[in-house]
Amino acid sequence: MSAELFEATKRWGRWGEDDERGALNLLTPERVARAASLVREGVTVPCGRPLATAPAVDNPMPALHHMIHAGDLAVGAKGFDWSGDFIGVAFHGNSVSHVDALCHVFVDGQMYNGAPASEVTSGGARRSSIDVADSGIVGRGVLLDIPRLRGVDWLEPGDAIRSDELDATGVTVEEGDIVLVHTGRDRRRDRHGAWNSYVDGLAGLDAECARWLYDKDPAVLGADGVSDVMPGSDPEWPIPIHMCALVGMGIHLLDNLRLDLLADACAERGRSEFLFVVAPLQIGGGTGSPVNPIAIL
Amino acid sequence: MSAELFEATKRWGRWGEDDERGALNLLTPERVARAASLVREGVTVPCGRPLATAPAVDNPMPALHHMIHAGDLAVGAKGFDWSGDFIGVAFHGNSVSHVDALCHVFVDGQMYNGAPASEVTSGGARRSSIDVADSGIVGRGVLLDIPRLRGVDWLEPGDAIRSDELDATGVTVEEGDIVLVHTGRDRRRDRHGAWNSYVDGLAGLDAECARWLYDKDPAVLGADGVSDVMPGSDPEWPIPIHMCALVGMGIHLLDNLRLDLLADACAERGRSEFLFVVAPLQIGGGTGSPVNPIAIL
Amino acid sequence: MSAELFEATKRWGRWGEDDERGALNLLTPERVARAASLVREGVTVPCGRPLATAPAVDNPMPALHHMIHAGDLAVGAKGFDWSGDFIGVAFHGNSVSHVDALCHVFVDGQMYNGAPASEVTSGGARRSSIDVADSGIVGRGVLLDIPRLRGVDWLEPGDAIRSDELDATGVTVEEGDIVLVHTGRDRRRDRHGAWNSYVDGLAGLDAECARWLYDKDPAVLGADGVSDVMPGSDPEWPIPIHMCALVGMGIHLLDNLRLDLLADACAERGRSEFLFVVAPLQIGGGTGSPVNPIAIL
Amino acid sequence: MSAELFEATKRWGRWGEDDERGALNLLTPERVARAASLVREGVTVPCGRPLATAPAVDNPMPALHHMIHAGDLAVGAKGFDWSGDFIGVAFHGNSVSHVDALCHVFVDGQMYNGAPASEVTSGGARRSSIDVADSGIVGRGVLLDIPRLRGVDWLEPGDAIRSDELDATGVTVEEGDIVLVHTGRDRRRDRHGAWNSYVDGLAGLDAECARWLYDKDPAVLGADGVSDVMPGSDPEWPIPIHMCALVGMGIHLLDNLRLDLLADACAERGRSEFLFVVAPLQIGGGTGSPVNPIAIL
Repeated sequence: MSAELFEATKRWGRWGEDDERGALNLLTPERVARAASLVREGVTVPCGRPLATAPAVDNPMPALHHMIHAGDLAVGAKGFDWSGDFIGVAFHGNSVSHVDALCHVFVDGQMYNGAPASEVTSGGARRSSIDVADSGIVGRGVLLDIPRLRGVDWLEPGDAIRSDELDATGVTVEEGDIVLVHTGRDRRRDRHGAWNSYVDGLAGLDAECARWLYDKDPAVLGADGVSDVMPGSDPEWPIPIHMCALVGMGIHLLDNLRLDLLADACAERGRSEFLFVVAPLQIGGGTGSPVNPIAIL
Repeated sequence: MSAELFEATKRWGRWGEDDERGALNLLTPERVARAASLVREGVTVPCGRPLATAPAVDNPMPALHHMIHAGDLAVGAKGFDWSGDFIGVAFHGNSVSHVDALCHVFVDGQMYNGAPASEVTSGGARRSSIDVADSGIVGRGVLLDIPRLRGVDWLEPGDAIRSDELDATGVTVEEGDIVLVHTGRDRRRDRHGAWNSYVDGLAGLDAECARWLYDKDPAVLGADGVSDVMPGSDPEWPIPIHMCALVGMGIHLLDNLRLDLLADACAERGRSEFLFVVAPLQIGGGTGSPVNPIAIL
Repeated sequence: MSAELFEATKRWGRWGEDDERGALNLLTPERVARAASLVREGVTVPCGRPLATAPAVDNPMPALHHMIHAGDLAVGAKGFDWSGDFIGVAFHGNSVSHVDALCHVFVDGQMYNGAPASEVTSGGARRSSIDVADSGIVGRGVLLDIPRLRGVDWLEPGDAIRSDELDATGVTVEEGDIVLVHTGRDRRRDRHGAWNSYVDGLAGLDAECARWLYDKDPAVLGADGVSDVMPGSDPEWPIPIHMCALVGMGIHLLDNLRLDLLADACAERGRSEFLFVVAPLQIGGGTGSPVNPIAIL
Repeated sequence: MSAELFEATKRWGRWGEDDERGALNLLTPERVARAASLVREGVTVPCGRPLATAPAVDNPMPALHHMIHAGDLAVGAKGFDWSGDFIGVAFHGNSVSHVDALCHVFVDGQMYNGAPASEVTSGGARRSSIDVADSGIVGRGVLLDIPRLRGVDWLEPGDAIRSDELDATGVTVEEGDIVLVHTGRDRRRDRHGAWNSYVDGLAGLDAECARWLYDKDPAVLGADGVSDVMPGSDPEWPIPIHMCALVGMGIHLLDNLRLDLLADACAERGRSEFLFVVAPLQIGGGTGSPVNPIAIL
């Protein structure tokens, strides 16, 4: 059934055979300007998680953060001295807030628009790398707050969200929006501690939501999990939302966001839309970037 | 004289003895909202440089970008496959676009607000780390385009900019602004190739501009170089703008921006102000972060 | 009691107040030559573990191994092409085979020979770094095979070995030896899979073995665990063998060796002594090095 | 002509079609035992260079050495504390002492024994990786001291050594030897400072020495440069010794050794043979390893 979904929602060629940007094409200057006009109070809300450098059950590949010059070398120094550090991160996975480039996933050896997997070499991606988002990803963000809809604090790992729930939030999703789905992941983690999301899963969208994405036509999809409900139900289509969105529809994904602060800020104000800014690092040939997206209300 | 400058422009205690945010305190919601209202066309302009992973004369510590799973592992695969990478970077220096946290520089063993250098350990900074900017740095950006003022394409390495030139640009700088100084660095590099900025220098602000900063009271200062003219003239105060801004006034700095695209976009439109968004990664205890700031016109 | 042990076995000043090599001084050319004469068959046995790059319950900080140029860039190439990789590792901990420099551990703020902890800065160690072993650690190795003594395949995690057992192996330990203690760790791991050694522990030497070390006077101590039994019994002296050996006696330690192959090779031949060669990387100011020691029988 | 050389010296199939070890097969236990018998005085001489972590003209990709816990976190601590570090290195190139696995180089898309380049993926090498040397590379080392032969302190960058000079050293090279060629590189660097070896070259073997290698049949070849004279003379065969040795003959290479200490030790004693031990890290699927080989005289 996922294969059918994939074919039914595929939009290769929509912006030309050579297009590498996919639905980012929907982020026209007009839409950006309109999104900026949504700012009322000027409150900024971070939607990235702290870079996880400590080993933990939900962080099998901790990011590196090492000091290369600390205050111990400056103690007693007269005049100028400095401190500095090194960071390193394999950002994909279930921990680090990041954006997925369209080259991050392949279906049957092809990425978005039919480019072959062989275009992603050990030297980097030659097609649909994160370079296409160098100018930032800026637009109207909308928050779909599922725990709020359900009257709970959070969804349990493995809990699947269906498209009728997305509609039931009452939030109008427009073409070219940056759609953010809140599942309450970080609230649960704060309360009960970390869990192994690779084994025990994450709340997220059921595969059938691919059709909803096709109909709503957003520019970008993000979640505090990885958009897909985990674990998936079909071993051959383990993350169907990733597969349909990135490969079929050319929709960039934002994984492992922190959305509890935004959910609170929206609930407090009775709002669900805002200016949303993502600024990927300019990693030439990269398959994505760690990011700290900012919502401005 | 730099020591006098430092004392004359020092603002410790302005926001309380325990303050770690410095002039970021000027980025009030009101100012953020007003900055958002500057957006007219919705054009986004990237102000970060491509992450420099290749060894070059101006890049003595290349960033790491390594594929951990490329298309070669997906060729011929049925169904799902993926690609992913690792990035690593010691972002301070003269190459990578980054924001300096207030703990990055010490004067006589002290950082901003008098905190001792010993608060920055090999485990990270316990005071004034980049954490204070987790919610992003958002405000009114203004571009001071010095090559345009002088009628040249770029300033030469080592060329010092004085405060009367900053005024002569005609751009009104207001309290709480994010001030960006363009010297044409990347234009020169595009035309003539890389040079060793550690030896041959960078165009930038003369030390006396510290007083101008004190008077104008911006929230943040950025440049396509490192704000300071390099090399400096006083071995004991090698980077007086860094020392006065970060340590004395609590002004975060943006180093090694790419401002030629922004200069062109502004010149074309006869503008010099815009919404400016910086989204540092949430590096706990970090002395800064690589960034790709976005100007929205 | 550990504090007493520490004082009773401390040998600061033995090779002069400025000495940074500790018991490596026992590895005289005469001893090296005699050790070489132990080689009979010319069989080489590796005593390092494979560098653990995969996340696992016993590997909270996986080593990095990333290709920077793989065959995918060479496919179809005429003439010359190449492949290459990057490795990165924080080698201390309970997984990677490594040698501990004498600066790796402090007791009451002091390392071996009384040098202050402040000599190990964020720029590296200025005293007793691994540099002192640049010429290699070569000598007579002796294997104390505790599972063989006990008639079991392996010791259980947390199982403490006492000094009378070390003697009961019948192996004569001489001054200047490289003493290796086999607990069967990798056999157990091969059979039952990985366990979290930070929680569930490792077999190793009871604290009282410090006195045995003092009496036997080896040049180096190594084990397939971390020499100390884990978890320790005294929170203030969590790893008393490390503390007494590295800090008090100046004995370098080899942690996380793989000794099952060597145990088999020795048992098969009725031997327990051999030429043993450790070749630390020349990491200036380093607190140790990943190593792959080689026994030659 | 290099293509002819390659074909003339190719030894694919010598140890079977599936062999991945090449000339390491010559390092039989008998040879290892005989090599151990060469030890007389027990003097150990390091043949690795210090890991180069500082940017320099001959080090475009400096190794990473970062403290993750330094003495600054232990100052004032009672009882136990520790220090530790991270190292990271892309070890191929002209700076770091390393061993090349047979999968490091391809000729016409093939590595040693005809395995296709596609066997080296972004996940590591599936054929002839450095794993084949897990047990160490141990044998009779012989030093060919070319500066001594010529009566100079060092050879100049770009200086080619021909096979008749190798013979003229008077050193008898036997089947299965580990042959080390000294060019005086580190002496020159100590005296005159670093130079850009990628531009200005390195002294090394002329292409025709491939035939000499074929005739002498060593197990391993090493040099204080990269064995090949640099720059090469044929753009299509830029490093013919690498190509013929690694790919054609299955001879592992040791690059960027430090041989001045060994040259002095040999000259002083009128010796040219010794026990030689290389202990590569067990990097699964790796294309080589940083090493610090030890000569024992």
